[in-house]
Order: sequence, then C-alpha cells, then structure tokens
Amino acid sequence: MSALVKSRRIAIIGAGNVAASLAPAFLSAGFTVVAVWSRSEESARLLGKKIGSPSFTDIDSLPDADIVIVSVTDNALSSVAAAVANRFKEALVLHTAGSLPMALLREAGCSRYGVFYPMQTFSKSRPVDFSTVSLFVEGCCEEATVEAEDIALSIGARVYRATSEQRRFLHLAAVFVCNFSNALYAMAAELLERNGLPFEAMLPLIDETAAKVHQLSPRDAQTGPARRGDTVVMQRQRELLDGTLLEAYNLLSEYIQNTKYDKL
Amino acid sequence: MSALVKSRRIAIIGAGNVAASLAPAFLSAGFTVVAVWSRSEESARLLGKKIGSPSFTDIDSLPDADIVIVSVTDNALSSVAAAVANRFKEALVLHTAGSLPMALLREAGCSRYGVFYPMQTFSKSRPVDFSTVSLFVEGCCEEATVEAEDIALSIGARVYRATSEQRRFLHLAAVFVCNFSNALYAMAAELLERNGLPFEAMLPLIDETAAKVHQLSPRDAQTGPARRGDTVVMQRQRELLDGTLLEAYNLLSEYIQNTKYDKL
Repeated sequence: MSALVKSRRIAIIGAGNVAASLAPAFLSAGFTVVAVWSRSEESARLLGKKIGSPSFTDIDSLPDADIVIVSVTDNALSSVAAAVANRFKEALVLHTAGSLPMALLREAGCSRYGVFYPMQTFSKSRPVDFSTVSLFVEGCCEEATVEAEDIALSIGARVYRATSEQRRFLHLAAVFVCNFSNALYAMAAELLERNGLPFEAMLPLIDETAAKVHQLSPRDAQTGPARRGDTVVMQRQRELLDGTLLEAYNLLSEYIQNTKYDKL
Repeated sequence: MSALVKSRRIAIIGAGNVAASLAPAFLSAGFTVVAVWSRSEESARLLGKKIGSPSFTDIDSLPDADIVIVSVTDNALSSVAAAVANRFKEALVLHTAGSLPMALLREAGCSRYGVFYPMQTFSKSRPVDFSTVSLFVEGCCEEATVEAEDIALSIGARVYRATSEQRRFLHLAAVFVCNFSNALYAMAAELLERNGLPFEAMLPLIDETAAKVHQLSPRDAQTGPARRGDTVVMQRQRELLDGTLLEAYNLLSEYIQNTKYDKL
C-alpha cells in the first residue's frame, strides 16, 4: 500500500506555514509534488522554487493530481475548496484545518475528501520533524480514511483518527498549550527587555515546564506564588504590571487559586 | 575555594519544594546538612529522613552551621529570618525567594546575608538537575556574593549576579513562562478530559513550542488563529468555551492580535 501511495501525485493548495512544512516532507517520502498554488504569486513562486515544483495562482490551470492538500487560511477554505472541487473530480481532497468540519468539503462539492490535521506549530524558518507530530485524520469513507492514514504514515507522523467534533477540541486545546503559551513567553520577553535582562535566562525554565507534564499532570505540576497563596509576592508583582499583562496576571492567578489541589 | 566551601555545614530552613530540591543537591556536592527546620513537624521529619539529617521545629535549638538557607513561603520570610538572625550570629544567611529584596534579611537583623534564587519549577516528586538551572545570587558585600556564587557553582548551576530589582522582574517573567504556561496546560487538560481525549497527544506540541523559542524570538515563533486573523475559527472556538477559559481565550487572543509582527 505504501509503495502505491508514494508513487502518487500531490498538488499543494496554499503556501502558508503548514503547506511550506508539509511540501518538503511529502518530497522526502517519495511523493511527486506536481504543483503549488497560492492566491499570492510571490508566495506560490517562493514555495515552488524551494521544492522544485511549478507554481500557480489559478486553480483551473493546475495539472492532474491524485491527492490535493488544501492548506489555506480557515476563512478562505470554503471558497478555495469549491474551486478545487470544480477542477479535481477524482482526486482525494484533504484539508489541514483543525477547527473546520470535514463536511465543509462535501458542501464545497468534493466527492472524495477527508481531513489531514497535523497538530504542530509550523514556522517557515524552522523545519519540522514529522516523527514528533500527532496527525489526526478523518475520511468521507473508510477507504479515504485509510488513504489519509497511509499518507500520514509515509511522512512518519503519529497518526490518530478523530471526528470533526473531537478535532475542534483538539485544536482548541492546541491553541491553549501552544499559541497562548507562546504569547506568555512574548509577555515575559517584553518585561525582561524593558529591564535590560536576557530572555535566554528563561530557556531552562521553559524547557523544564514542558518536560514536567510528561511525568506529572498539569495540576500536580503547578507551582508559583498563586499556587502557594503568597499574597505578599502577588501584590508586589502586580505593582510591576499594567494593561493586558496585569489582566493576564490576575486572570491566570485566579484560575490557579480556584483549582483544587492535593496538599503542597 | 571550592574544597573549603564543600567542607561547610548547612542548615536548611524550610521543607517546601525548593528546600526539598536543594537539600539533596547540597549533599551530593559534599556539604554537610546539619539540620532541617520546618514549622510543621511532619514536613521537617520527612525531609530530614529523606536526606539523613536531624529535623527541628524550633529555630533556637538548631545546631551550629556556616550557611543557613532560608527557603520558606514569602509571607513567612521576615519573621523566620528574624528568628534565624537571633540564633545564627556568624553564619551566611541566604534566602531563595525571587521577589523579595535582600534588604529584608538586614531588616530582620542578619549580619552576613545574601540571596540564592534558583529560577526553576520545583516539585517534590520530580528531581531537578541543577546543571540546567539559572541561579541568581546577590550578597550584602563582595565576599558574601562570591561565597553564594561558589555554593551555586558547587551544585552545578548556571550562576548569574542580579540585584534585588532585577530579580523581581526575573521572577515575574518566570511566573509568566512557567506557572502561567502550566495553567494553560491545565486548561487544555480540562477541555480534553471533558471530551474524552488524551492530554498525551498534546506533548509533542508542548515540546515544540518550548523548543522553538531557543531559535526564534517568541514574537517570530507566534502562530495560530489570532496570529493569522482567522476570525471564523476564533468565533467557533469561543462557542466551545465559557467562564475563565473564555476570558483567557479573549485576553490572550487580543494580546496576539495587538502585537506588531513581520509579514507571515
């Protein structure tokens, strides 16, 4: 099955962070990437050049493909999927969005479709090792699901099946642990920069915070002034903050204080 | 200098997470831990037993020591430090609190004193490797500072000097990257648990989020719906939330949306 899958032609619709991370992984796995499409000519050209594939800005003029990966902004997915359904009648069309239902592809007119959601944070400047990625698949039928699973396995991902409803919660949880944690890192960087202190000094703590929840539940891993009820320190820390950072401090401290813990 | 330091006697005042992590590190480095004190008889006894040192609940009855590490709740530090100053006239007294000024020890009556702040998240059930810990020291005089540095170096920590004011900001930044990130992990765990999904699936994403900021600044590493302006997804995600989690979603999304980024 794997050899069959790998001989197949993939068209990549989108040139954002997810598309740009998946494209080289498909190439390495032996797929042929026959085309890269983006609404933006420059983005299409850049990604096409990077992986040695022709680039397009018109979906109707794309060459034939067996698999179409649609990885565009969630706001654009419906309209782009409709154009894809119009151009590709036989191909398996897979979208990569965490929060959007598979049904959106049926509504757009696709006949063979599914979801291929790699739950990871992708930035163009940092290559992703897919062997560390949890990838959630769903198909319009068992055959499509198995095909999506095989594609995910060929790039080395840890594959799980998930319904559209489960995926919504997975994506939401991902926003909390990844996008929002990173926003907290950004807030810390802002505080340190204002006081001439290096963000680098935080890295061991950031690593240990992440490593800890491999072993303890987040509740058991919780530490800090709010966890200990150190009201003196909390008041002194509030004095250093204002605006959104103060609001975040109060809200997250309140959440920690309202959680029921075992004895310290 | 190191050999001299290691021959010295340490008394540990406190039996919380920091004290319980430091005590075995001092032992491994060759110090003699002459006593463990805690207000709670049980906590003192448990930590004393663990490291093979006698335990006390009365500061006045502690044996002589060259170094006294005061690692108690921040709210209790002033009163405990006063009792320590009364019992130990010659010893170097070091507190481990991130947010409290060194001057507090002078005000408590200590004559030789300083700060020994290991910036890490400590839980009793997880041993800490001090070679990955940034440890910030401050002393009442150059001699005390050097002595604190030597103690920190003997347990293998990465040692920095920091003033009380700088340490306040370091501790505050630590609360954001560690305690608050962990609170977000707890929120995600809550969402997943309610929907029968495993928190384990988040671990690769948590690890990559932490690993990314070794290479990119948090601002450059930012991804997600708020970063992309995916308002459709954001609205759909808000529908899954209420209470504190919804407030956190809105506040952190707003922070991300208000940040100035380079082109996606």
